Amino acid sequence: MTEHTVSFDIAKQPVRVPTGTLLSEAARLAGVDIGQPCGGQGRCGRCAVQVTKGEVRRRSTLRLSTEDVSQGFALACQSVIEGDIIVTVPPQEKIERRLTTDRTAIEVSVPPDYDPQYSQTIRRIGLRLTPPRMDDQTDDWSRLKTALRQKAGIEDISVSLGLLQKLGTILRENNWQVTAITDAHIEVDGQRTDERLVTLIADIVPEDDPLYGLAIDIGTTTVTVWLVDLVSGKVEAQASEYNSQISRGEDVISRIIFSSKNGGREELQNRVLDTINQLVTQLCKRTKSRSQDIVKATVAGNSTMMHLFLGIPAASIRLSPFITAVNQPPIITAGTIGLAINPEASVDCLPGVASYVGADISSGVLACKMDETGKLSLFLDVGTNGETVLGSREWLVTCACSAGPAFEGAGVLHGMRATKGAIEECWISGESSPHPYEPSYRVIGSAKPRGLCGSGLISLLAEMFLTGVVDKGGAINLSLGKINPRIREGEHGPEYVVAWGNETESGKDIAINNVDIDNLKRAKAAIYAGFTVLAQSVGVPLEMVEQILIGGSFGKYINVEKAIQIGLLPDMPWDRFKFLGNTSVQGAYLSLLDWRNRDRIRDIASQMTYIELSADNTFYDAFMSAMFLPHTDLASFPSVAAAVENKTIT
Amino acid sequence: MTEHTVSFDIAKQPVRVPTGTLLSEAARLAGVDIGQPCGGQGRCGRCAVQVTKGEVRRRSTLRLSTEDVSQGFALACQSVIEGDIIVTVPPQEKIERRLTTDRTAIEVSVPPDYDPQYSQTIRRIGLRLTPPRMDDQTDDWSRLKTALRQKAGIEDISVSLGLLQKLGTILRENNWQVTAITDAHIEVDGQRTDERLVTLIADIVPEDDPLYGLAIDIGTTTVTVWLVDLVSGKVEAQASEYNSQISRGEDVISRIIFSSKNGGREELQNRVLDTINQLVTQLCKRTKSRSQDIVKATVAGNSTMMHLFLGIPAASIRLSPFITAVNQPPIITAGTIGLAINPEASVDCLPGVASYVGADISSGVLACKMDETGKLSLFLDVGTNGETVLGSREWLVTCACSAGPAFEGAGVLHGMRATKGAIEECWISGESSPHPYEPSYRVIGSAKPRGLCGSGLISLLAEMFLTGVVDKGGAINLSLGKINPRIREGEHGPEYVVAWGNETESGKDIAINNVDIDNLKRAKAAIYAGFTVLAQSVGVPLEMVEQILIGGSFGKYINVEKAIQIGLLPDMPWDRFKFLGNTSVQGAYLSLLDWRNRDRIRDIASQMTYIELSADNTFYDAFMSAMFLPHTDLASFPSVAAAVENKTIT
Repeated sequence: MTEHTVSFDIAKQPVRVPTGTLLSEAARLAGVDIGQPCGGQGRCGRCAVQVTKGEVRRRSTLRLSTEDVSQGFALACQSVIEGDIIVTVPPQEKIERRLTTDRTAIEVSVPPDYDPQYSQTIRRIGLRLTPPRMDDQTDDWSRLKTALRQKAGIEDISVSLGLLQKLGTILRENNWQVTAITDAHIEVDGQRTDERLVTLIADIVPEDDPLYGLAIDIGTTTVTVWLVDLVSGKVEAQASEYNSQISRGEDVISRIIFSSKNGGREELQNRVLDTINQLVTQLCKRTKSRSQDIVKATVAGNSTMMHLFLGIPAASIRLSPFITAVNQPPIITAGTIGLAINPEASVDCLPGVASYVGADISSGVLACKMDETGKLSLFLDVGTNGETVLGSREWLVTCACSAGPAFEGAGVLHGMRATKGAIEECWISGESSPHPYEPSYRVIGSAKPRGLCGSGLISLLAEMFLTGVVDKGGAINLSLGKINPRIREGEHGPEYVVAWGNETESGKDIAINNVDIDNLKRAKAAIYAGFTVLAQSVGVPLEMVEQILIGGSFGKYINVEKAIQIGLLPDMPWDRFKFLGNTSVQGAYLSLLDWRNRDRIRDIASQMTYIELSADNTFYDAFMSAMFLPHTDLASFPSVAAAVENKTIT
Repeated sequence: MTEHTVSFDIAKQPVRVPTGTLLSEAARLAGVDIGQPCGGQGRCGRCAVQVTKGEVRRRSTLRLSTEDVSQGFALACQSVIEGDIIVTVPPQEKIERRLTTDRTAIEVSVPPDYDPQYSQTIRRIGLRLTPPRMDDQTDDWSRLKTALRQKAGIEDISVSLGLLQKLGTILRENNWQVTAITDAHIEVDGQRTDERLVTLIADIVPEDDPLYGLAIDIGTTTVTVWLVDLVSGKVEAQASEYNSQISRGEDVISRIIFSSKNGGREELQNRVLDTINQLVTQLCKRTKSRSQDIVKATVAGNSTMMHLFLGIPAASIRLSPFITAVNQPPIITAGTIGLAINPEASVDCLPGVASYVGADISSGVLACKMDETGKLSLFLDVGTNGETVLGSREWLVTCACSAGPAFEGAGVLHGMRATKGAIEECWISGESSPHPYEPSYRVIGSAKPRGLCGSGLISLLAEMFLTGVVDKGGAINLSLGKINPRIREGEHGPEYVVAWGNETESGKDIAINNVDIDNLKRAKAAIYAGFTVLAQSVGVPLEMVEQILIGGSFGKYINVEKAIQIGLLPDMPWDRFKFLGNTSVQGAYLSLLDWRNRDRIRDIASQMTYIELSADNTFYDAFMSAMFLPHTDLASFPSVAAAVENKTIT
């Protein structure tokens, strides 16, 4: 078979591939990570690269302009190699390794009632065993059990085969003085039932030596791991990293499609495990601790992430009637799935509610404590799926609306994730200013702009609306092009140029067009419609909500004013909004620390009422009403109505 | 490095090995299975082969005569290859593949009270699930749990990750109609507690379709597997095979030594698993069943075999104070250790009592029902370790005496296992016959004799004693050589020729010498001393024993009269002896069928009192008294005294 040489500008060396190889596959072989948000289906156009020498056969040029194609641009996932080529990977598409969420560690305070002796299922027990004699022929395991009963009152304990295989050697090498670490199942009344021997440590370890656990949040985009000292309860270190599955699909649907391909499920499981294991290595290095001493892990994440992490097929999540294989996975051991901590450590995947309301949401409810308050609360995780929970300690209802990945930068021509070079906030001057309709913006990492991230898009749209660049239907008012050339007819229809090519990293204009705006409107309308339906389902007016709790790392960067102006968030006094950051990992942390929290999250997940939005027309009607800026019913957005009226923007 | 060519007469083709390779290693590479009963320590002399061309460097020639060496004989485990050689593997040393115990299947009757609905922990439940709908979003696993609760009243059930990974596909492919197979933990009062989902079978299976379990006995020499229909309780097929560990040591001590070498533990575990898996394949083929349908396995075996099967280090079993890692191993799943049946099947290793009284003995006690009878019983498993249990339903005491492998043919120059070519019974004419001191014998498999097996050695020694060829001390009376040249001074001292070279397969004489007799005496004295000490320990005279139950496959072939004459068995009316065959696999079968038996064996193992013989001098004194034929105290062997007196042998 004929082979061709493919050289990437950012690869160390060229690769040789046979005729017919996909460009995306060649990139993989060359070690070049090209994002494929749609999972390689040719839908998103985000894997575009520039072939600067030679030619490729393009199966599809969707989302590429004629000019793009003439300049050699091609979709990596849709282009077939049939000769030697040289390829440039455009800056925006390079997957930035540095996460904005990793910039600062969050201060986490240990719950004031944390008492490792009572709260923790993990116990450390120093033991001095009586050595065996000719007249005391008790076997090693029974001898250890007797000591555990006498020293710690443990009546029922089990041991894995793996640990039994090491038991005799450890006991003898340490002269029958060892530290046992056990993990317990705890019943609702706080009674320990069966315990499990997790590990035996050489010799006796001081009682206040650290003993570690992990709180893990597997996000579709970002994986976060906290290393927790189980004795003090303190978070010793935090680390985040892109979920390496990202190159196989940016949203859960693309991931599910990829996982259904031959070998895809194994690849995605390995990818997320790699990401977690690398974070664990990093955390251990930073704190000078040994991964062997991590004896427990608690995992939160949406249902798809949880299925893929456990290697469980997720196909049915995507297909009507959208059913998970399991919402409350059994506790497994780290060794079983290859999590690189103590192989006997329990890996406790927290319970979810449904296909699109996963453990990240029950964990979020736990973290924001809405299940314990008398206040009517709305919990919201803005992301691809706008998961929303409404309720209080009396009742909880939840729904998920497929908002799409627009706020994560996908489905928007110049959209990108919130990394270096992303425009994260925008302002546009009003018609009465000396230079009408001129933008100014703030870029992450003081770099040249490369695109627009979610918070940038929200503020840009709000500004365009308030200044009249778009009307309440979201359509760009082309007639304003006479006043400012940024408003123009572009390749994809009417558009507004946020940054001219001479300011940007790529040298090309960064603009937003009507198609982009339509996608953003769908996203915000879906989320807002979710609130409406939840409130309707329990017959509570939305205005009665006393606090709006916003989770998810994206939530941290939302400007409330702008989000209300486009009708993403309900129009309420700003002090009712609380931005909580990554509530998913916070809930995992609380569940890791205290079995009472673990009990609570089980109750949260099993008692929350899930409202399936596609079951009738209620959601569709609410969605259509929210497809305007800010909403059909302007009366429910009084502050926005006033702003539009006053044209306060200059 | 220089390489040499080694050709074995029974290998398909020669192998090339570097200078310095052991002959035994070259044999392994050539696929030639040479027995190494002592584990390759050069102690037993059983791996002798004949180098017919070329030379080897002999590190040791122990147990080889000068004549042997001059003929090219060398110990494979002690000979270093330093040039091209051609090797003949003598017939006696080839490991015969056909076992005598496999010649006939034993008729096993199903216990009359067997009721799969009540007795069996395995349940098969046909289920028709309600398919999920938009307004019934229960996850797959919860849906299945609900169906199991409604149909079979199962409240608490767990599932493995492996099965969860298949669950959704199985349910959907079979249109939500499946058969679940579950396994239960059962409490003492017969209440089912937590059950475990073992497998889901495509579609609904008829209630009376077979559903299989395995009863496994891992003997040091032989592995026996019974395939059991768990619905009818019937043993569908039986198969036995040499434990393939045998080439790495013939007795448990040699195996432990081998297992302590680098990689030895893994090799021995793989070898016994290979043996079992081959037997399972055989059984499935014979009964046209699928290994996937075997959903439970119960395993008996001595403590060393159990440790090696589970991959648990056994070193401490061999070293004072002789402690096992575990007597009651946890239940594991077949997939965990690579047993080639349904990977979710539970593998239940039965409990043992001590290092040298293992699960084979508690299983034997269960099978012979001595724990349920009012009769004072003596249970005996003749083998390398003479394990003995004395007692009734009131109490049980047990001990193990290291008899050595003489009855299995090791430690005896012309000893061999009970396979084709083994002399299994002997008679010697008395001094008053026309041809005094002439032997006649019976050979297994109507072949030319190749050696003497255990039963052959017992009857030969008894005949030699009764005819006066040996005295009560076991010494050969050389003066009789004047009457019959079979009694002569041989290479290893005085000997008696049982078969002349012209009758034998090898063309060499088969004889027994004073050293062999000494080893046999030690073996029988150890076993007899065991009885004595047990009886003394509880203050019961041996004569009060009402039945002597003999287990082990070797036991089946013992001639009681001869065994009493050499003082191996106590002198009692023959009708008190019962030969039960392989009681170890029988007990495994009973435990597999009925949880009440499984409870019984747990009680047997935990309540039996273990007497450690090396704790004081009682055993040593009893052993020394038993080092005579039949015993120092002839009064306790009245039938033998009478026979000697009457010289009834002609």
